[in-house]
Amino acid sequence: MDYENFFGSELQSVRDEGRYRVFAEIERKAGNFPQATRYVDGETSNVTVWCSNDYLGMGQHPKVLQAMHTVIDECGAGAGGTRNISGTNHHHVLLETELADLHNKEDALLFTSGYVSNWAALGTLAARIPNCMVLSDALNHASMIEGIRYSQADRMIFEHNSPEDLDRKLATLDPDRPKLVAFESVYSMDGDIAPIAEILDVCEAHNAMSYIDEVHGVGLYGPRGGGVAEREGLMDRITVIEGTLGKAFGVMGGYIAASKNLCDYVRTFASGFIFTTALPPAVAAGACASIRHLKESSAERERQQDRVEKVRSALDRMGIPHLPNPSHIIPVMVGDAHKCKFISDWLMENHGIYVQPINYPTVPRGTERLRLTPSPVHSDGDIDRLLSALSEIWSHCELARRDIAA
Amino acid sequence: MDYENFFGSELQSVRDEGRYRVFAEIERKAGNFPQATRYVDGETSNVTVWCSNDYLGMGQHPKVLQAMHTVIDECGAGAGGTRNISGTNHHHVLLETELADLHNKEDALLFTSGYVSNWAALGTLAARIPNCMVLSDALNHASMIEGIRYSQADRMIFEHNSPEDLDRKLATLDPDRPKLVAFESVYSMDGDIAPIAEILDVCEAHNAMSYIDEVHGVGLYGPRGGGVAEREGLMDRITVIEGTLGKAFGVMGGYIAASKNLCDYVRTFASGFIFTTALPPAVAAGACASIRHLKESSAERERQQDRVEKVRSALDRMGIPHLPNPSHIIPVMVGDAHKCKFISDWLMENHGIYVQPINYPTVPRGTERLRLTPSPVHSDGDIDRLLSALSEIWSHCELARRDIAA
Ligand SMILES: Cc1ncc(COP(=O)(O)O)c(C=O)c1O
Ligand SMILES: Cc1ncc(COP(=O)(O)O)c(C=O)c1O
Repeated sequence: MDYENFFGSELQSVRDEGRYRVFAEIERKAGNFPQATRYVDGETSNVTVWCSNDYLGMGQHPKVLQAMHTVIDECGAGAGGTRNISGTNHHHVLLETELADLHNKEDALLFTSGYVSNWAALGTLAARIPNCMVLSDALNHASMIEGIRYSQADRMIFEHNSPEDLDRKLATLDPDRPKLVAFESVYSMDGDIAPIAEILDVCEAHNAMSYIDEVHGVGLYGPRGGGVAEREGLMDRITVIEGTLGKAFGVMGGYIAASKNLCDYVRTFASGFIFTTALPPAVAAGACASIRHLKESSAERERQQDRVEKVRSALDRMGIPHLPNPSHIIPVMVGDAHKCKFISDWLMENHGIYVQPINYPTVPRGTERLRLTPSPVHSDGDIDRLLSALSEIWSHCELARRDIAA
Repeated sequence: MDYENFFGSELQSVRDEGRYRVFAEIERKAGNFPQATRYVDGETSNVTVWCSNDYLGMGQHPKVLQAMHTVIDECGAGAGGTRNISGTNHHHVLLETELADLHNKEDALLFTSGYVSNWAALGTLAARIPNCMVLSDALNHASMIEGIRYSQADRMIFEHNSPEDLDRKLATLDPDRPKLVAFESVYSMDGDIAPIAEILDVCEAHNAMSYIDEVHGVGLYGPRGGGVAEREGLMDRITVIEGTLGKAFGVMGGYIAASKNLCDYVRTFASGFIFTTALPPAVAAGACASIRHLKESSAERERQQDRVEKVRSALDRMGIPHLPNPSHIIPVMVGDAHKCKFISDWLMENHGIYVQPINYPTVPRGTERLRLTPSPVHSDGDIDRLLSALSEIWSHCELARRDIAA
């Protein structure tokens, strides 16, 4: 076998499909988000980022940066070990305490990323609870799917956001069999939100554990940023709340919050938790500062919702099609990989507007889109420039518009 | 099923076996490594860390800390997205270029950790190369094992560090079948080093790809810190070199270095690379500064080797049993989980010396040990205190000593 040849030809097929990914190389400017410097072949230009998951701009918040500076000076760069072997820093413990409090749970457990937290926690629970059956929402994130697959447990996929289908599936199972129901609060590509209360009703009726991924909810919803489940007063009914420190909190890392025994169990048995260097103490401290701030301040959340509303209603006025949803995510639908990339390139080259085209495997083929994430740091001027550029390219490409509400 | 009850009783069995892990909560003091503050129930004390994998103390190097400070001020806390969706920062690109250069490869690809790099790269290669057979060293790290398992490819385990057994196994396979040989350079728990040249001879004879984990080699061996394969002039013969930024480089993150097509292939298809927030730019910049420094300076490596030699020969003089090996890792063998923990606790409580007991599943049961990692930051005084404490507890517990060389 000629390995190099094989890699080359596989990549060529991806190129032919128009879904070869070119990463935009940027340098976000702290203090000036959403502005960034873009690098192309040694040349630089200024761009406005419209597709970041630093949803609230906390990645430039002075309290977050200050906490990181301080802890770098105090503790150095890295943790220096796995959690078990000299890598548990005081700041990891403080952060775990903060996270348990955020979700009103007995304990929390930190991972190197949200991806690893889903993979390791779901993988460990489903693999080790004897005869566990996993019920997984049809649109769950790759990290949850991989965790479930890792476990080799039996699993059923229930219809997306359907408590009825979940109930039907659970009803077919032995009532004594251990069950784990895994779903998300905010689905990041469509921006729809799960009927959490109804799903929990079903879980409780069948004595199933509930596992919610609040990666796109934490920091953004609820009076203290505890997520959609906090907003709806449901945190106490959920067995495991999983989240990230890399999106609304603006730093990096992942976690679960749950009972003391459950966290201790995952801590004790999860390969992806045990056999890896712990997060840098300064990263933990930055995340901790971010969570603390967002527990007390709703200003960022309110301004974000205002910005989202402003973009959404302007798109409606112009008839530019976007998926309606109750969240902060605005998917502008294009439906073709080549066209999506063309528009994205055009916005970047002509207007310095950066919106990454989203294509397969992140979304199904035929649903390619531009995913806009308005944030408190986008000014009225930023919004006006985005919308007039979108309108121009929509006319230029003769893309379909919705009937414009009179 | 009573889930809480299940978790509780499983944890109790771990406790009964004496292998329940209590994480030491510490705060390493930048500028004063290996000194750290230890936290117990709100009380603090000073300890000397003897089990860190920040092998060269780069986690406190001024160049590393300065790079992190600068980039926090310039780019903020987190990357703000996955690599594809607004998360590729200029500093990731610089780091990938630096890593490709370190290993004299066309390209490099960054992951959030060494664990994820092994899991994602091995998993993707073995899963997607049609009919790939994986040959895996019997003592490979958990992250490699999980990657291979993830791939669902066929696999054979070859005897640890045995090119002969590898050759025998490869000879049974169809010469045209794609093959991937995965092994480590320095095995972290025993500290032994693979016969890399002989393994590569066998790989080449059978047209197998070679994948080496240099996690405990990079920064530490070779004139520029490229690892054991650099020291032995073998980098060009290896298909994939995998490493971490969290051990000798003192920060966090993982990577592979390989051909342009191979890196691009993993970049395009690896779930664990695609669906996760990128490393904070400041973490990438810190790692980059560390690599650059260790490319030019051998002082840290030389002093480390001197410290290792000093500890090893003193242990020999005192007859304290340790696994002989040609690396920087000194495993002091105890062979019992309870006893190992007892000694570790005693060193901590009586002498402020922190050496974590290493037990199952990190090492096989019956081979429990104290794993010492002398580093350039350990002074002669630190070494004397460690050795006199070890001698005291060895006598106190009537632990076996080796015949003392006359
Ligand atoms: C729903 C969901 N869960 C988990 C993750 C992974 O989180 P992280 O980026 O912290 O790895 C992501 C995105 O990256 C996500 O969209
Ligand atoms: C051999 C080996 N490979 C990979 C890893 C994982 O690297 P990281 O700590 O960067 O996740 C480790 C230890 O953590 C290791 O010992």
